[in-house]
Amino acid sequence: MERKPSPDGVAAAAKRVARHVVRTPLIATQSEGRSFLVKAECLQEGGSFKLRGATNRLLLMSTEERARGVVAFSSGNHAGGIAIAARRLGIEAVIVMPADTPAVKAERVSAEGARIVTYDRATESREEIAAALACERGATLVPSFDDVDIIEGQGSVGVEIVEQLRDPPGRIWVPCGGGGLSAGIALACPGAEIITVEPDGWDDMGRSLACGAIVSVADNAPSTRCDALQTKLVSPLTFEVLRAAGARGLAVSEAEVAAAMAWAVRNLKLVVEPGGAVALAAILAGRTEPTRHGDVVVLSGGNVDPALLASVLGG
Amino acid sequence: MERKPSPDGVAAAAKRVARHVVRTPLIATQSEGRSFLVKAECLQEGGSFKLRGATNRLLLMSTEERARGVVAFSSGNHAGGIAIAARRLGIEAVIVMPADTPAVKAERVSAEGARIVTYDRATESREEIAAALACERGATLVPSFDDVDIIEGQGSVGVEIVEQLRDPPGRIWVPCGGGGLSAGIALACPGAEIITVEPDGWDDMGRSLACGAIVSVADNAPSTRCDALQTKLVSPLTFEVLRAAGARGLAVSEAEVAAAMAWAVRNLKLVVEPGGAVALAAILAGRTEPTRHGDVVVLSGGNVDPALLASVLGG
Repeated sequence: MERKPSPDGVAAAAKRVARHVVRTPLIATQSEGRSFLVKAECLQEGGSFKLRGATNRLLLMSTEERARGVVAFSSGNHAGGIAIAARRLGIEAVIVMPADTPAVKAERVSAEGARIVTYDRATESREEIAAALACERGATLVPSFDDVDIIEGQGSVGVEIVEQLRDPPGRIWVPCGGGGLSAGIALACPGAEIITVEPDGWDDMGRSLACGAIVSVADNAPSTRCDALQTKLVSPLTFEVLRAAGARGLAVSEAEVAAAMAWAVRNLKLVVEPGGAVALAAILAGRTEPTRHGDVVVLSGGNVDPALLASVLGG
Repeated sequence: MERKPSPDGVAAAAKRVARHVVRTPLIATQSEGRSFLVKAECLQEGGSFKLRGATNRLLLMSTEERARGVVAFSSGNHAGGIAIAARRLGIEAVIVMPADTPAVKAERVSAEGARIVTYDRATESREEIAAALACERGATLVPSFDDVDIIEGQGSVGVEIVEQLRDPPGRIWVPCGGGGLSAGIALACPGAEIITVEPDGWDDMGRSLACGAIVSVADNAPSTRCDALQTKLVSPLTFEVLRAAGARGLAVSEAEVAAAMAWAVRNLKLVVEPGGAVALAAILAGRTEPTRHGDVVVLSGGNVDPALLASVLGG
């Protein structure tokens, strides 16, 4: 039987990655008299939590596997996480990115020494290209969330939250794309209420949890600035963990996300990308009653185009 | 003989304020192959290091003194630090601010429960108004840097830096207005080379250190966005500590400050105000050779008008 992500696996992953990742601060704040804590993963190396899962996955590869390299497809934070982890461990990395990826993101990945292979979004499949590359080199394909080691690595965020608090957290609000971060945190914090937060129209995890089975994003989903959360279909691995944990989902509007980004600049002095700000947007919008045992809000990333941040601040 | 700021005083202050202030993270970063650490005081409660000195000063007041309240003059971070510390300790605070203080800054101070007394910059003296207020109420006037307890409280930044490092820091770059933060850190880190950084034309501490006696800012000093560092004359208390420590000063241009603020957003995901970014600006501009023992750069505050930050990011 295939291994499933587990609390023990998360605990082991957290120990494994501890000296390779930043222990990000848990910061106390409040809005309109409601106190809560933010877990500032935007301060993680590479600017998002993705380094955690990538590091855990790559550390678990054998010497032979490492010698054959890794392949990943992502235009964003997963690419960055894989590139950093691979450089540190001396593993060759190939990242498959759309040809129209913003230069700044591609340059970051190149700067870490990863090789970039581009494809045409309109006519080519990144999955096929990545699989072909992995096959011809015998390299390991590292998915962004549909992977036990990746999920358990992301769970180190939850382990740190528990260690940084005196009492176990009552409720944790987590930005959700494919669900790797949410599932990992749910395993690390079994007593906490888990709320996944997604952009309006991209709340497939929330709708899947509500109906008890995986449903995909509609073909006519609206445009969103939350590029990190535009996952069309979650994975059985992440969904099952969250369903078993009794998690529920919320969705926020683009305007709420922009307001949360500006709020973080003014009040936290932190730069948060749109997808990383959805959980903050939900609590600031007062989507639930405060819990007696304390709200923790994960800020999952900070890789935002400066011009976009400027427009949010000017608006 | 009047007490002078001392290493023992700083150590005691650091213990005193520890549970009242945020232990801010020390974050590893690099630019063009040069590695250094940033001490992120922009993440301090109130958005700057000023809470440290204010807390130390107010904790040392007697019950009788506390009952008569405190008075301070400042349109910025010192006002915020005093207001927060006073609210927590149940001390009445009056802050003397220019009538043209931006509404956002005045609102913050009011929100902490402090009373604001305004004055006309052109025709009135804030020193006289504050002294008269203190006199009529028997309240304690709390200066922003020319005070032993304030300097020793700010020194808790240096105590944390030492605790957060394995080896003692080799060189510390510190934004400098009146010199309270720089002097406190110099006392906490006796083995480190201290570099004070000021805006061009406002580098009175640097020039004072170079000529061995206090000199003031010229009357025709240029305009600067570094409002937190526009001190016309440093204090013998801060100057003597820095002179004895062998500190030296550097000055940076407005363009270098803007570039550093944008760099912090892109690379650190941190919001830093102009005055808080001068030390970062100096190291990014390559003003000295790297030291073998490690550079630490203090980001002293993050209270920047969002529109100003937007203009820096758009530029």
